[in-house]
Amino acid sequence: MKKFTKSAIVVALGFGLVTSASFAASHSSVENKTVAARHAQMQMIAYHTGVLGAVAKGEMEFSADMVSAAATNLRELAKLNGATLWVAGTEQGAVDGSRAKTEVWSDAAGFAAKFTELENAASAAIGAADAGAVGAAMAGIGGSCKSCHEGYRGPKN
Amino acid sequence: MKKFTKSAIVVALGFGLVTSASFAASHSSVENKTVAARHAQMQMIAYHTGVLGAVAKGEMEFSADMVSAAATNLRELAKLNGATLWVAGTEQGAVDGSRAKTEVWSDAAGFAAKFTELENAASAAIGAADAGAVGAAMAGIGGSCKSCHEGYRGPKN
Repeated sequence: MKKFTKSAIVVALGFGLVTSASFAASHSSVENKTVAARHAQMQMIAYHTGVLGAVAKGEMEFSADMVSAAATNLRELAKLNGATLWVAGTEQGAVDGSRAKTEVWSDAAGFAAKFTELENAASAAIGAADAGAVGAAMAGIGGSCKSCHEGYRGPKN
Repeated sequence: MKKFTKSAIVVALGFGLVTSASFAASHSSVENKTVAARHAQMQMIAYHTGVLGAVAKGEMEFSADMVSAAATNLRELAKLNGATLWVAGTEQGAVDGSRAKTEVWSDAAGFAAKFTELENAASAAIGAADAGAVGAAMAGIGGSCKSCHEGYRGPKN
């Protein structure tokens, strides 16, 4: 997962509105946008995991099309390039709302591997033949969420 | 773009917590989750478009890696399967916060074509050689956003 410097993305997302007088406030606002964008990614991941979980638990009737749509979206969300989202300087404590541990950056390879784990787990649900197969895939999906959060997400703010 | 019935996704996203007494409230909450998930998609699209726009306007130094990361994410966000997101019954007026016109469903092919337009416009930015090339791609990206919003997004709530 490639990384870009904090200054590059801060400049990028200031959209030319930053003056020297307003820099501090705008600077904070830019980092908030980055954190909000990755929260949006997590929200979409949770939403699609919820669809698969409902099928696995028998709360939603199994549909091969629906399962494949949700699992494919989940896989693609996990595959998004983290360079625009996990920008250095946006860890918990540095930006309001962030729960990213510093390990996201200090152990970038391990962090990237967690997204690959989710990607593979989601892929396993594509083409599932029945709710039981979705349930088997859900174990992997839930496990990857849990292990990533344990290692790379801090406590609630 | 495949569609699923309203009842299927409502059942799916109730996650088994719906009792007959609480059905009305939970029903609303489920549709809110669907609307929130597509707003998250739009937020991520806007965020990545913002990165490309900043490069195009010279507010961010051109970086082939950053441009490709942002453009690839934008392309993939446009390609997400709409079946889990554009669920019938979640139009403006039916669900708080929704701005989806009924044309999303009555003209589903036209609506899907707008996402394909965005996908192609984003693809054009991948591998851009300089800020000028990003700017040329941005015209297509901005145009696809605008035309889709004009045809399928209602007024502010």
